[in-house]
Amino acid sequence: MSTKKIKVAIAGATGYTGAELVRLLLEHPNAELVAVTSERNAGAWLHDIHPQLAGLTAIQLKPLDDINLAELETLFLALPHRVSMTFMQKHHPLPCKVVDLSGDFRLSDVSVYEQWYDTKHVIPSLVKDAAYGLPELFREQIRSARLIANPGCYPTSAILPLAPLVKEGLIDARSVVIDAKSGITGAGVSPKDNTHFPHAYDNFSAYGIGTHRHTPEIEHSVGAFAGSEVRAQFTPHLLPVNRGILTATYSTAVKPVDAATLSEVYEKAYGGEYFIRMRPQSPQLRFVRASNFCDIYASYDARTNRIITISAIDNLMKGAAGQAVQNMNLINDLEETAGLTGSPVCP
Amino acid sequence: MSTKKIKVAIAGATGYTGAELVRLLLEHPNAELVAVTSERNAGAWLHDIHPQLAGLTAIQLKPLDDINLAELETLFLALPHRVSMTFMQKHHPLPCKVVDLSGDFRLSDVSVYEQWYDTKHVIPSLVKDAAYGLPELFREQIRSARLIANPGCYPTSAILPLAPLVKEGLIDARSVVIDAKSGITGAGVSPKDNTHFPHAYDNFSAYGIGTHRHTPEIEHSVGAFAGSEVRAQFTPHLLPVNRGILTATYSTAVKPVDAATLSEVYEKAYGGEYFIRMRPQSPQLRFVRASNFCDIYASYDARTNRIITISAIDNLMKGAAGQAVQNMNLINDLEETAGLTGSPVCP
Amino acid sequence: MSTKKIKVAIAGATGYTGAELVRLLLEHPNAELVAVTSERNAGAWLHDIHPQLAGLTAIQLKPLDDINLAELETLFLALPHRVSMTFMQKHHPLPCKVVDLSGDFRLSDVSVYEQWYDTKHVIPSLVKDAAYGLPELFREQIRSARLIANPGCYPTSAILPLAPLVKEGLIDARSVVIDAKSGITGAGVSPKDNTHFPHAYDNFSAYGIGTHRHTPEIEHSVGAFAGSEVRAQFTPHLLPVNRGILTATYSTAVKPVDAATLSEVYEKAYGGEYFIRMRPQSPQLRFVRASNFCDIYASYDARTNRIITISAIDNLMKGAAGQAVQNMNLINDLEETAGLTGSPVCP
Amino acid sequence: MSTKKIKVAIAGATGYTGAELVRLLLEHPNAELVAVTSERNAGAWLHDIHPQLAGLTAIQLKPLDDINLAELETLFLALPHRVSMTFMQKHHPLPCKVVDLSGDFRLSDVSVYEQWYDTKHVIPSLVKDAAYGLPELFREQIRSARLIANPGCYPTSAILPLAPLVKEGLIDARSVVIDAKSGITGAGVSPKDNTHFPHAYDNFSAYGIGTHRHTPEIEHSVGAFAGSEVRAQFTPHLLPVNRGILTATYSTAVKPVDAATLSEVYEKAYGGEYFIRMRPQSPQLRFVRASNFCDIYASYDARTNRIITISAIDNLMKGAAGQAVQNMNLINDLEETAGLTGSPVCP
Repeated sequence: MSTKKIKVAIAGATGYTGAELVRLLLEHPNAELVAVTSERNAGAWLHDIHPQLAGLTAIQLKPLDDINLAELETLFLALPHRVSMTFMQKHHPLPCKVVDLSGDFRLSDVSVYEQWYDTKHVIPSLVKDAAYGLPELFREQIRSARLIANPGCYPTSAILPLAPLVKEGLIDARSVVIDAKSGITGAGVSPKDNTHFPHAYDNFSAYGIGTHRHTPEIEHSVGAFAGSEVRAQFTPHLLPVNRGILTATYSTAVKPVDAATLSEVYEKAYGGEYFIRMRPQSPQLRFVRASNFCDIYASYDARTNRIITISAIDNLMKGAAGQAVQNMNLINDLEETAGLTGSPVCP
Repeated sequence: MSTKKIKVAIAGATGYTGAELVRLLLEHPNAELVAVTSERNAGAWLHDIHPQLAGLTAIQLKPLDDINLAELETLFLALPHRVSMTFMQKHHPLPCKVVDLSGDFRLSDVSVYEQWYDTKHVIPSLVKDAAYGLPELFREQIRSARLIANPGCYPTSAILPLAPLVKEGLIDARSVVIDAKSGITGAGVSPKDNTHFPHAYDNFSAYGIGTHRHTPEIEHSVGAFAGSEVRAQFTPHLLPVNRGILTATYSTAVKPVDAATLSEVYEKAYGGEYFIRMRPQSPQLRFVRASNFCDIYASYDARTNRIITISAIDNLMKGAAGQAVQNMNLINDLEETAGLTGSPVCP
Repeated sequence: MSTKKIKVAIAGATGYTGAELVRLLLEHPNAELVAVTSERNAGAWLHDIHPQLAGLTAIQLKPLDDINLAELETLFLALPHRVSMTFMQKHHPLPCKVVDLSGDFRLSDVSVYEQWYDTKHVIPSLVKDAAYGLPELFREQIRSARLIANPGCYPTSAILPLAPLVKEGLIDARSVVIDAKSGITGAGVSPKDNTHFPHAYDNFSAYGIGTHRHTPEIEHSVGAFAGSEVRAQFTPHLLPVNRGILTATYSTAVKPVDAATLSEVYEKAYGGEYFIRMRPQSPQLRFVRASNFCDIYASYDARTNRIITISAIDNLMKGAAGQAVQNMNLINDLEETAGLTGSPVCP
Repeated sequence: MSTKKIKVAIAGATGYTGAELVRLLLEHPNAELVAVTSERNAGAWLHDIHPQLAGLTAIQLKPLDDINLAELETLFLALPHRVSMTFMQKHHPLPCKVVDLSGDFRLSDVSVYEQWYDTKHVIPSLVKDAAYGLPELFREQIRSARLIANPGCYPTSAILPLAPLVKEGLIDARSVVIDAKSGITGAGVSPKDNTHFPHAYDNFSAYGIGTHRHTPEIEHSVGAFAGSEVRAQFTPHLLPVNRGILTATYSTAVKPVDAATLSEVYEKAYGGEYFIRMRPQSPQLRFVRASNFCDIYASYDARTNRIITISAIDNLMKGAAGQAVQNMNLINDLEETAGLTGSPVCP
């Protein structure tokens, strides 16, 4: 095991993604967390904001501008979209590598970004330099990039099962329906009416039907493997659990396909991938909880001529912080799985 | 308000559906619950099996064969499939009307029943006499029937939003995808591995992909309104809540449709229906909890040319006991909403 | 059944208690809800604030000052403390009877109120006229009062099991420990950090240790039955469920007591009470959910010489709105159980 | 960091404690898991029983008798009580050290064991050789023992806050009331009626009032630090969460004590302890989830002259597997915190 230690910092450490990054980095064999930021809580101890960290770290939050970028190998940006690109523009070119967890650099077509995010991009020239940080599909681009656009949580859960189907030409790329269900940490750390416990507990509902920003991200990234344009019907739901996304996809098959073929297609795509586990039946959120795994089940329904996939990730891990650390490992020539080999916490 | 009182009994009163029927019937202005049955718990007080009923009823469970059918206006069969039809065969013809909550009489094509339920039907001659108990769509058949096949919980949640679309020819009847999520009471009262609290809590998964018995029921009942065969892709999920089903349907539009037209279609179908409420956004389980309502949202996505519906019911109410009481009201010439006007329990 | 209909109004109908009152009053055989108020949402339809009520009522919220008090038989005040007494002072003397759900009139010693609520009482002269609205213990005072101080949720759950023990001199009134656990609706409708779903779900904690305002209310009301001062150690906890309070009390026995005696003591106190159910083992929240019952278990532990009670209520029902309707029934000479006989919703 | 690797095995790896041990041992820097056992599932892959472990281990379950005890440094017994002592008797004297997670060797007075567990002890001679595995209180005994009786989950949560109070003579040792609430994994992996999701979700209740087997364990272990006999009133509750125990203790103070003194008492007892964190307010389950921490809050209520403590642990970690690994570390001269430094998983 490498004993190299890289210096890293987290911009925006008071949210759930920031806290999860801290959890991972404190146990990472090759990383040292040297700074964490918060504008509102600058000066506070990190463990006063996240009491679970008491006794585990003695680091204070500071303003973003106080970070010494020059000492870092990698900076994580766990900031809201717009704030991320504004920071990138202000400090361009950065002396360190960046893993950005916002949506600001995920869509290579800036006009698509500006339409779905309803805002002007402030540094469009940087977009083409950003690698889309889904290592199982874009590993080589990631290795050589200095700016990683860490994928959205829903897109990760949908792109991983769909890409092999599109790549092998098994499905009609315009037929894809994606029905996704996310735990409530996905809605962020700020209390809102729909995340108030009595409103979310023992409840379930859809939202953002036909309008969610992750739609173009899915279409674009799956489209990278398709001969034709991908068109996805995407519906997210708010699931009354803390962590996890379970996503069902439904696609019309180009022609009938047997189970063995389907199995081979995924074996070919992900046979050597540590973080992807093919399952003989529906994945369950509990089997990936607090881990970086993406569990996938795929089947063909001859009655309807559709290929159906069910995938499960932990939205804070493979859907955010875990994948960000995987990307950090890649761009720093560390073992790709370093710091990410802990078993899921189940139950 | 009518002061008429009909005598009713519940065969199978120890499960969740049986208990919910008791809850409704104890407060029903025109019904008197005269018998409840259980083979295993015969002799026990009903409130010892369902302690929530302590002080509310002093009725004892008895074996099914001890019911005096001749004194009843209506008998509810809250029995497992196969047990229901065996009972019906044994006592044929019954002196009272029957609302059967099992799947035994829901599929008018006996061969389809035998294929999906993997069992021989014991009294196929009765099937054609049974009315499918979805009053909003089959009210007249119900009124004149002596045997009501009370719909399945998932089918109720899917047929109600889909039927108007098919009836008006808005969608391709072979394109329907149904992604449904049910609370865990739907799995019944007996402890099983997948309903063990630590396995279901903070968890979510799909099951019965492409093979669930409610599939032909949905196809058949929606098909009653279609010019052509309906083919539905149906995926149920186990949702970590007690009550409620939220169902998303995705159908390819025959041609673009505007919001006003969609609204008119549902107004025409359900404008006068007490138990159907059209919603301006996604329904939520909490807004129908413990009530007989079915809340529906429908929209057209021009980008994908699909009509999407989201519907919510309480699986023990509109999905089982509530609908059964609605059917009881209809076949006994009572006010259709009698005993079913309580507000949802929210939160 | 009486066909009399009294006119009532709810001041403060946008919170959980207000909504629960609406749910009860819409089904109440002898009450007509003629007005609901909200300052912030004046003008809105009640069912837009509480979508569960869609189709069940067509009433609009209006400002408190627009209520016509003269047409009412009873007004419910579901307002924050301080707002309640200010309203009472402003309109003194009111032409209608009042059930106040705040803490403003519960403590007959104004100085105790001012100390624990840290505020000046604005109409202390009214306090002595208010009856403490726990019908099972203070029914006669309630019947003749025009102002009812509806008890707090925790006090209801603690006073009911403790009062008979104190009344019969079984326990040392200074030894009482009360460990109570409440569902999160008790924290109100406004999103806060500790009621944010990811912070409350899969979590549990205590709060207000030794300082909760319900402490003097419990001591005072139990004290009404004791020869000496009652001193209670009260610790509330936040339970990750929506509704319900389960309360354990521990008291040193004055002398050993057998099970039969304990049973007789409660039979004597509550034998004829519809809403109190003695249980042979620990009550469970689910058995009282959405009902006005208080379930109680009591036992004597010879090893420790303590009497232990466990009680369960629904905090929105017997802990608030249900009890308020019970009080409304009493002060208007209606059947005490009218509108409150629905079975618990379980599961 | 030591690179020593000890060989360990788990007897009984299909339950929650066994699975948690696997999770910890797979990441442990100084342990190698060489065998796992199950009688019922012998021959199965461990990851087929615990699908969360897919890809993380390729080990098969085998019968207990097939373990090669001679190759082990330490054997974990995650077996039911009675099975544990029967195994110990059969193989006495064992060639390896043992950490037993059952109750069989926790009570040094065999007659007390036999009374509370209602069974004959089969190897009473071994009991006196067993060390009670609560390192923060009995570290030296543990270091030199070959058999560790790993504490019960409830006792761990109660003894840690109480022992310093007793040791310093601050409380009347006969006045202790313990009100504890445990997540449902504490009830084990086998589905039962009270752990059926619809019966446990949105519910809460007490059980085993005055009769729980952990009572004498608490009294005995706290008693080790008291001059006089300890008498504890212990009431466990079933909390609708997966993991975690929150325990409140109430004890009469011998004399008034100020906050500073209380703070010093705990500082003296636990100032150097990695796994004990004193908190300025009530601990929360989420802050210790999946970690080996015990968080403690203590306060004195002058009004009642009681010392109140609230403590939180993860019942599967500090309450079982985590503490077992801590003991394994101690008896094998490893760093006590090895493999146990991961941050809590929050939310």
